[in-house]
Amino acid sequence: MTTNPSPAARTAVEYFEKWTAKDLDGAMAMLSDDFVSHTPSGRVEGPKAYAEFLRGFVQILTGAHIIAVFGDEYTALMYYDTSSAPVPDGPGAEWFRVEDGVIVEGRIVFDRLPFEAARAAQGG
Amino acid sequence: MTTNPSPAARTAVEYFEKWTAKDLDGAMAMLSDDFVSHTPSGRVEGPKAYAEFLRGFVQILTGAHIIAVFGDEYTALMYYDTSSAPVPDGPGAEWFRVEDGVIVEGRIVFDRLPFEAARAAQGG
Repeated sequence: MTTNPSPAARTAVEYFEKWTAKDLDGAMAMLSDDFVSHTPSGRVEGPKAYAEFLRGFVQILTGAHIIAVFGDEYTALMYYDTSSAPVPDGPGAEWFRVEDGVIVEGRIVFDRLPFEAARAAQGG
Repeated sequence: MTTNPSPAARTAVEYFEKWTAKDLDGAMAMLSDDFVSHTPSGRVEGPKAYAEFLRGFVQILTGAHIIAVFGDEYTALMYYDTSSAPVPDGPGAEWFRVEDGVIVEGRIVFDRLPFEAARAAQGG
């Protein structure tokens, strides 16, 4: 993993380690109450709604590792790969805005297509 | 745009400016002959094949801007947003490995789902 020792990057890594360890409560505790995320399926507001956004994926997650993470005092950028039963190689990237160690805004991008294809194949 | 003044980040920005200005030849000239990219649709090898991978999107691209870019001497990470006729808000992220100002390896992630949906809606 490539990284630089910035405060925001450290926060992003800690957050990643929590949610990929399926500690959704621990991860959500790192988000501000007015946290907003720009996701492939639209804007998600607040830690509670974001937990719902992540929960289904976290349940099927079998592996995740960071490919690179960089940042400065207030911004972090991360690229990672994930494995899950339907999608063995599912990369994602996230951008974070961090204030005093708390994540106040996020952007997440990943390819929904293989997940949708797996769902369709299951008749769901 | 958030950035740090690393050599690899500068290369990534120059590359982004070229392809989003539809200068595909100029962008491809920044890739090594044995360039490999890990894309949502699989592994793409060589600048020629990568130009084909990008061409359709470049043709419909109407706008693009970098949200953040960071890097060190050999690695860059970039998060951006794009606009195109079928997908007005199409973010993407790229990871680059750079050697002597030349991009030797890339990873790109974006959500193919809205592009596929637009294609399906057009009966294509």
